[in-house]
Amino acid sequence: MDFSLELIKEIARSSPTRIVLLVIDGLGGLPNPETGKTELETASTPNLDKLAAKGICGLIDPVSPGITPGSAPGHLALFGYNPISFNIGRGVLEAIGVDFDLQPGDVAARGNFCTVDKTGLVTDRRAGRISTQECTELCQLLDGLVIGNTKIFVHPVKEHRFIGIFRGNDLVPEVSDSDPQQIGVAPKSIVALSPEAGKMADITNQFVAQAKKLLAEHHPANMVLLRGFSRRPHFPTMGEIYKLRPAAIASYPMYRGLAKLVGMEILETGTAIEDEFVTLKQNYTNYDFFFLHIKGADAAGEDGDFNRKVRIIEQADNTLSELISLEPDVIVVTGDHSTPALLKGHSWHPVPILLYAKWCRPDRVGEFSESACLSGGLGRFPATQIMPLAMANALKFNKFGA
Amino acid sequence: MDFSLELIKEIARSSPTRIVLLVIDGLGGLPNPETGKTELETASTPNLDKLAAKGICGLIDPVSPGITPGSAPGHLALFGYNPISFNIGRGVLEAIGVDFDLQPGDVAARGNFCTVDKTGLVTDRRAGRISTQECTELCQLLDGLVIGNTKIFVHPVKEHRFIGIFRGNDLVPEVSDSDPQQIGVAPKSIVALSPEAGKMADITNQFVAQAKKLLAEHHPANMVLLRGFSRRPHFPTMGEIYKLRPAAIASYPMYRGLAKLVGMEILETGTAIEDEFVTLKQNYTNYDFFFLHIKGADAAGEDGDFNRKVRIIEQADNTLSELISLEPDVIVVTGDHSTPALLKGHSWHPVPILLYAKWCRPDRVGEFSESACLSGGLGRFPATQIMPLAMANALKFNKFGA
Repeated sequence: MDFSLELIKEIARSSPTRIVLLVIDGLGGLPNPETGKTELETASTPNLDKLAAKGICGLIDPVSPGITPGSAPGHLALFGYNPISFNIGRGVLEAIGVDFDLQPGDVAARGNFCTVDKTGLVTDRRAGRISTQECTELCQLLDGLVIGNTKIFVHPVKEHRFIGIFRGNDLVPEVSDSDPQQIGVAPKSIVALSPEAGKMADITNQFVAQAKKLLAEHHPANMVLLRGFSRRPHFPTMGEIYKLRPAAIASYPMYRGLAKLVGMEILETGTAIEDEFVTLKQNYTNYDFFFLHIKGADAAGEDGDFNRKVRIIEQADNTLSELISLEPDVIVVTGDHSTPALLKGHSWHPVPILLYAKWCRPDRVGEFSESACLSGGLGRFPATQIMPLAMANALKFNKFGA
Repeated sequence: MDFSLELIKEIARSSPTRIVLLVIDGLGGLPNPETGKTELETASTPNLDKLAAKGICGLIDPVSPGITPGSAPGHLALFGYNPISFNIGRGVLEAIGVDFDLQPGDVAARGNFCTVDKTGLVTDRRAGRISTQECTELCQLLDGLVIGNTKIFVHPVKEHRFIGIFRGNDLVPEVSDSDPQQIGVAPKSIVALSPEAGKMADITNQFVAQAKKLLAEHHPANMVLLRGFSRRPHFPTMGEIYKLRPAAIASYPMYRGLAKLVGMEILETGTAIEDEFVTLKQNYTNYDFFFLHIKGADAAGEDGDFNRKVRIIEQADNTLSELISLEPDVIVVTGDHSTPALLKGHSWHPVPILLYAKWCRPDRVGEFSESACLSGGLGRFPATQIMPLAMANALKFNKFGA
């Protein structure tokens, strides 16, 4: 735990006030060259504009200026965890993404089905990007293998990607990858990177050997590559740090998984934006912090679909009145990163944020947009400072020092 | 000493220029719901507005966004000391607050008179908040006790609060508190927290036992609780860091004490704002840095008295012409934190700052207020950067690197 979370732990206090953090994934964008307006600026958002006018706005850098965050660092920062010091291994992240229930001792690895030639050299690291259907069938061949007292779970992710979970005694993640990250060479033998990792290296190598045999007739997916061995990290929970009873409302497993890692309760919800707000309403009295995640804007941005992203933002705005009618003490609306449709992917651009609370010091921003937030009272600041600001505005902090 | 102070030490140079840092305690505020204007925005401040128009403005975060600072961290930051790494123990801070002349080996503790029942359990940690008068009389009972070669000074602070100072050989502050921080339990025995602290624990326990006997008939104040044992910290002085000859003008002991801790000379002054400016004028040629502290705005804010805070800001503005006529090379006006009358206490809101100097790059801000400072040329920045900015504008820094 870095010092600032330790500090927060010392000054945080429990109180009856409520905070809602609404994350519109991939919110920030870039202007459409024809109109000069971003997705958010194009969308008609009367509710967000009203909140912006009554609240205080700004722009956040999820990790650091110029850095494009993945979903994990983007969200960890929103929850107040420095995404540089709080690391999640690749294997664990993939497991979280498919909702695999990782146990404390499990070691997870990211896997690829790949192609090897007769001499065992890798000719395609992705086995021609086989279909998810094919991947699922191949995973069934490997799933449930037992080596010594270690059981191996193999679950499909997407196309050639799968996860391998090793469950047994004395397993540690300090082993090297088998994935050589290039073609024309053989998969690497997995070696122990710590004195305790001998058993783990042995078992993973045995698993790879068995997989090779079982897949021999399944060209192009006739071999596996493993990387990113990792264990579920033990992060201090939001309950410990902020003395909150936090709950997450998210329709995608990745975000539920990230929320679980920081100790949020995961609430069952549907797949539509409206479902999430219904869930919020139903559970409103049981928690004092809600993380509400809207995925569609990011997906539309990734697809390069400017207009769909606009529509999803409008839909979120429309449903926002449900949230406002609950009168939370603090409402924060932002994104975990920008996903400009023009770039068809996550980007480094700072993300608009609005904070509405009785005790915020309102600025002169009258609409929620990238350009308006530029002159907001929150200025431009690191996303890790959102939680302290929300806590302060909810009067959940004691004074620091006498 | 953290890196940045080491760095400053390397580039600071002595010069004939003068800096005046005017601190209006608790300056920042929140808008009156009826007018939409903060205390500072309501006040008529022609002199501050003139300085703002000619100078450069911004907003400071005393500690970090969302963090409400006490007076000590707020001021240490203004003097350029990171308030997270430069810590002042509770006992020492209280001693500073009542102007007790702490010697280098002294260990100070914050004390409460409290009530215990016949079985010795604490029933009231504050002894019914006895009057300061009563506290003063009880302190006289305990003041001057000698245990072995250790002398104990007991001085009243306010109501049930006092300070205990332990002066002797081989005393160290690494002992636990006797204050259990709850009722229904007995005061805790003080234990050594380091191998060297055995003697200290022994003497403090003996002191508590003697105090219990001496107070036995003084219900409700029939026992003491001690906490926050600490020694006067050794901070690098402003003379060492900045090569300044710094002086402090403050009517309250707490601020004089904080200034003394960073090596300022304390100038005798009166209690009115006008007195402080007279003191400045009289001593102007003898120093090249002045810290001038105006307390009233914070006190008015704490009392929830919006109009009184407005009047005190106007009074400060009025007297400011005295300062301007001295033509200091750099004038900085800011606060150590916000104290909105609406919140009746310190708050986390950023504090307006103006810097006026011949070599500042003026912005377009034409008045000194929270909202105008938002678009100031200094932006929003940590208070620890004020001193480097003031030093630079006074041409007291050499170039960094070749």
